Amino acid sequence: MPYVNIKVTREGRPEGKGPSAEQKAELIAGATDLLVRVLDKKPSATMVVIDEVALEDWGMGGLPVPEYRARKARDA
Amino acid sequence: MPYVNIKVTREGRPEGKGPSAEQKAELIAGATDLLVRVLDKKPSATMVVIDEVALEDWGMGGLPVPEYRARKARDA
Amino acid sequence: MPYVNIKVTREGRPEGKGPSAEQKAELIAGATDLLVRVLDKKPSATMVVIDEVALEDWGMGGLPVPEYRARKARDA
Amino acid sequence: MPYVNIKVTREGRPEGKGPSAEQKAELIAGATDLLVRVLDKKPSATMVVIDEVALEDWGMGGLPVPEYRARKARDA
Amino acid sequence: MPYVNIKVTREGRPEGKGPSAEQKAELIAGATDLLVRVLDKKPSATMVVIDEVALEDWGMGGLPVPEYRARKARDA
Amino acid sequence: MPYVNIKVTREGRPEGKGPSAEQKAELIAGATDLLVRVLDKKPSATMVVIDEVALEDWGMGGLPVPEYRARKARDA
Repeated sequence: MPYVNIKVTREGRPEGKGPSAEQKAELIAGATDLLVRVLDKKPSATMVVIDEVALEDWGMGGLPVPEYRARKARDA
Repeated sequence: MPYVNIKVTREGRPEGKGPSAEQKAELIAGATDLLVRVLDKKPSATMVVIDEVALEDWGMGGLPVPEYRARKARDA
Repeated sequence: MPYVNIKVTREGRPEGKGPSAEQKAELIAGATDLLVRVLDKKPSATMVVIDEVALEDWGMGGLPVPEYRARKARDA
Repeated sequence: MPYVNIKVTREGRPEGKGPSAEQKAELIAGATDLLVRVLDKKPSATMVVIDEVALEDWGMGGLPVPEYRARKARDA
Repeated sequence: MPYVNIKVTREGRPEGKGPSAEQKAELIAGATDLLVRVLDKKPSATMVVIDEVALEDWGMGGLPVPEYRARKARDA
Repeated sequence: MPYVNIKVTREGRPEGKGPSAEQKAELIAGATDLLVRVLDKKPSATMVVIDEVALEDWGMGGLPVPEYRARKARDA
């Protein structure tokens, strides 16, 4: 009875659109298949929860993602 | 000093209404009472955080909840 | 299909004994009952995960729990 | 490669304003610096995720935060 | 820069053996591939954390997993 | 009343030693100070939970940390 939590950034502006409903359905199907394939878990007992995280709420390299990406683009 | 996280689906459409503020207060009171009763914890040191999860962000049986419920209703 | 995570300190020394298996079963039953009672959720779709956290891994008031408790006892 | 999750209440009404983007950037920088200073972790491998939690979704002392604060103010 | 957390039961007795290191490596590779395939995320920015949960710490249907499984086997 | 969760790898072999109790106390103090400084939160209402994650349970770049580090060292 696995539990999988997937956190991804909510992309797009100004409201943020995140991944589409279709992409979320693919993440749910794919994560469930993975547990079935590797550990022989039952799909009916596998829970997946997706969290969309606003860009300003996610940090990498000590910076919010928008600044982090801008710095990486500048340094590339 | 327990910490309890309760994740539930946000029900209702199109915006989603989730559980009401009254129901959330009941969840908070009930979870705190449970820790007091079973483990003799102090209410003042017990934190409860409720997350409402959009239906398309929650998966069971490899499907987003709306499709999962539709399939269960069809198979019943 | 709720998901409940309960974090409690692992008490006892030197290995830590945490809550007993019986107390954990009570927490699982109680949390499930709460979701059934308040939100009419199905027990079969309710997942509960308990985490025991070592005392040195839990902080309150800026201190690990053992120091926090010692300070509270001293100040009482 | 640490992962830090910071949950804070979303303050302000009626929509809730939470901490500002500047304050979030300070939390991300500060949490990353902390891991660098104490455990010599690399900033580039340190992820920080901030969750703003609505006041009615956070409980202390068995009450949602608004009622908890009102009671504390009354008892002070 | 996704973050994936996978919680699975620690199986085997008396100490519990959980999934093997090889199975964990497959879960990490598979979860990363999923994010690359569906959302075009970079593997280098994808973090996966696996938690093994003791059977007595996981509840379904209001029961710890061992009792839940015994009941399901009896009812089958 | 913030809640901070810090996940770090448990380093050292064969049992794993993770960060020391002193380092954990520094993480707890530092995370609490950060919330006080940036958001004027009260230390007494700030909870910090540290999780040590075994190297084989943490993945980056699609690999468990030991393989990921070996590859980075080889490519450096």
